[in-house]
Amino acid sequence: MGLNPLGMQTLQKATNRETRRINQRLVMGTIYDEGPISRAHVARVTGLTRTTVSDVVDGLLTDGLAEEIGFGQSTGGKAPILLRVPDDARQLIGIEVGDVHLSGAIVNLRGEIRHAVELPLDARDGERALSQLDLLVDRLMAGPHRPLLGIGLGTPGLIDTSTGTVQWAVNFDWRDLPLGQHIAERWKLRTYVVNDSQAAALAEHTFGGHARRPNMVVVKVGRGIGAGFVLDGRLYQGDGFGAGEIGHTAVADGNRPCHCGSFGCLETIASTRAVVEHARELAPRFAGSGEIDLDTLVEAFQSGDALANEVVVDAAEHLGRAIGALIGVLNVEHIVLVGEMTRFGEPWLSAVRREARRSALALLADRAQIEIGRLSPNLVVLGSAALLMTRELGLTFSR
Amino acid sequence: MGLNPLGMQTLQKATNRETRRINQRLVMGTIYDEGPISRAHVARVTGLTRTTVSDVVDGLLTDGLAEEIGFGQSTGGKAPILLRVPDDARQLIGIEVGDVHLSGAIVNLRGEIRHAVELPLDARDGERALSQLDLLVDRLMAGPHRPLLGIGLGTPGLIDTSTGTVQWAVNFDWRDLPLGQHIAERWKLRTYVVNDSQAAALAEHTFGGHARRPNMVVVKVGRGIGAGFVLDGRLYQGDGFGAGEIGHTAVADGNRPCHCGSFGCLETIASTRAVVEHARELAPRFAGSGEIDLDTLVEAFQSGDALANEVVVDAAEHLGRAIGALIGVLNVEHIVLVGEMTRFGEPWLSAVRREARRSALALLADRAQIEIGRLSPNLVVLGSAALLMTRELGLTFSR
Repeated sequence: MGLNPLGMQTLQKATNRETRRINQRLVMGTIYDEGPISRAHVARVTGLTRTTVSDVVDGLLTDGLAEEIGFGQSTGGKAPILLRVPDDARQLIGIEVGDVHLSGAIVNLRGEIRHAVELPLDARDGERALSQLDLLVDRLMAGPHRPLLGIGLGTPGLIDTSTGTVQWAVNFDWRDLPLGQHIAERWKLRTYVVNDSQAAALAEHTFGGHARRPNMVVVKVGRGIGAGFVLDGRLYQGDGFGAGEIGHTAVADGNRPCHCGSFGCLETIASTRAVVEHARELAPRFAGSGEIDLDTLVEAFQSGDALANEVVVDAAEHLGRAIGALIGVLNVEHIVLVGEMTRFGEPWLSAVRREARRSALALLADRAQIEIGRLSPNLVVLGSAALLMTRELGLTFSR
Repeated sequence: MGLNPLGMQTLQKATNRETRRINQRLVMGTIYDEGPISRAHVARVTGLTRTTVSDVVDGLLTDGLAEEIGFGQSTGGKAPILLRVPDDARQLIGIEVGDVHLSGAIVNLRGEIRHAVELPLDARDGERALSQLDLLVDRLMAGPHRPLLGIGLGTPGLIDTSTGTVQWAVNFDWRDLPLGQHIAERWKLRTYVVNDSQAAALAEHTFGGHARRPNMVVVKVGRGIGAGFVLDGRLYQGDGFGAGEIGHTAVADGNRPCHCGSFGCLETIASTRAVVEHARELAPRFAGSGEIDLDTLVEAFQSGDALANEVVVDAAEHLGRAIGALIGVLNVEHIVLVGEMTRFGEPWLSAVRREARRSALALLADRAQIEIGRLSPNLVVLGSAALLMTRELGLTFSR
């Protein structure tokens, strides 16, 4: 069908300076994806002239963003010099703001974690979280690292990625917190802030070995519930960066009050907090154990406790219906579940799948694969790094 | 933020031949969008060299895809020649397969309808529909027209746009009908088949005067219910071209059997067929009129009949909740309602809006605008033509 319309739009906006930038990204992206690769081969793949490719490669070699690694097979004449992007040509800081901890890591251009730091997140108010965050970045910067491309942060809530502001994090009571600006000013590094579920989707797509699937949905089910979408190969964020906020859509028979101010949200039934609260209401403590928490509930569920089963299966079914609706809306065939609720394992997953199939058009539902993710627990850390890498260098995939 | 990742991907796949094709589309798209415009200005906007632009323009002039229309203002030297794309440089056939009629039109590159034909669609089986379709195209081809770019068809159901096959049209009982192949072989023209709601979305986005909004959702509510999405500037179709099949997601308290084989689908409550059936069950005939049909129900609703109000408001509320879920999922701020149900007008729209707002996260819902479309009744005809135009010429927007 030829070039897609957005390629057109993007190009239409290109000025001469942007053309150079486009060529640079194009050449580097090709070397990153296809390397080891010769200049001539890069020219063939990109459609650029050999002269343009050589000029761009000279710049990349100077900046350390590419390296020559020996000779390839001759096809008649002189053997060509092969190029590649060194895995650690640049490193990135990826950070997850979790429910009870801050996790950070130095990550390379292939999504390999070189050095990780974790701190408790003991304060829910914005100011104290910021100072913990400063401490985390200080520790990461103090460790060994190569030249840094910047900092990526994944955090729950409605995030304006263009300004780095947390507009509203329902479970943290954060409103209009200028997270990105704070980090960028303190360390003078490019900083991107993204919703944690959106980061998770980008991580699965970029580093999850999903062989360049165009579309992928990641649903993060923990204390909160949110989805992230990669559509037609790109992170889709919506008009206000809030795409995937499924945790606050009303569910069938729900009427419990939600922290967002509404009633009957999916989070009030299918989140970790909801199942624990629900179990506590039904039976304040399981036989032989103390007060119910997520650990005891997982244990009870796995040992076949009827009450735990009722609560968790109910949660799974509501989640399944929400996912069935997603399948109907987006017709995405690869759905990955991540987050603390996946600890309930196979029986929980089965109930999610069953209800998802029941509530989507059969022809669409049959093709949908719903799986538990493989990259956790570093998904958000990797995803925020992936966003940074994509936006700054135009690198989108690893092999 | 520079180039988006998909631009990269697209470019990475470009070969030299594709580069020429990209340049051609880029230049033509710029003249189409910005014309009257000089060659020098095209070069500035596109970042291409003047030589490349002149070469491409020569080809476009030869093909009649651009024309010179006089001189612009001199900025010192010789006054520049201005170019534009003639509105009727190519014409397109757009066709809608509706519930009870086939509509077709000769459309120009600005979405202006030059000649229209309508035929009754008296047969629901695929073979007879095909022969009616042949008749329609024959009539359109027999009328006056300029060189034709091809044929675009919008039809309900799950359509594989890559092959032009109707995989399943629930309300028509069509399965695996090779609609596109039939048309393409008979008239030897490029043919695109697309789901009618997806076509409607593309039409609103391309010709609806929405000033290049990146995201738009069109919900078509008639005998069936489906949505079409333009996301980040492009028609989003999903893995199996089924994006937007919201008519068959299960709704809250629904348990009526649906033609799709499932129960409680949105279509069983919120479609024109559903409200008519529902009203008939409650009262087989309104006082003074014959058996209830859509016309009598609209009339009764508008004159304040309590029963009609109950049925229609219930339908609107269920639709509103589905739209609220869409807002939560996609964070799209512009939602356009089209189709026969819009005949119920303002009170119906108010109920849809109220429930949509109630069931989406407040911060997202507040920004969402839900309107009744302005382009009907030619929306699907124009949208299938827009798809053809986009895919064949790379033209995406009009001013």
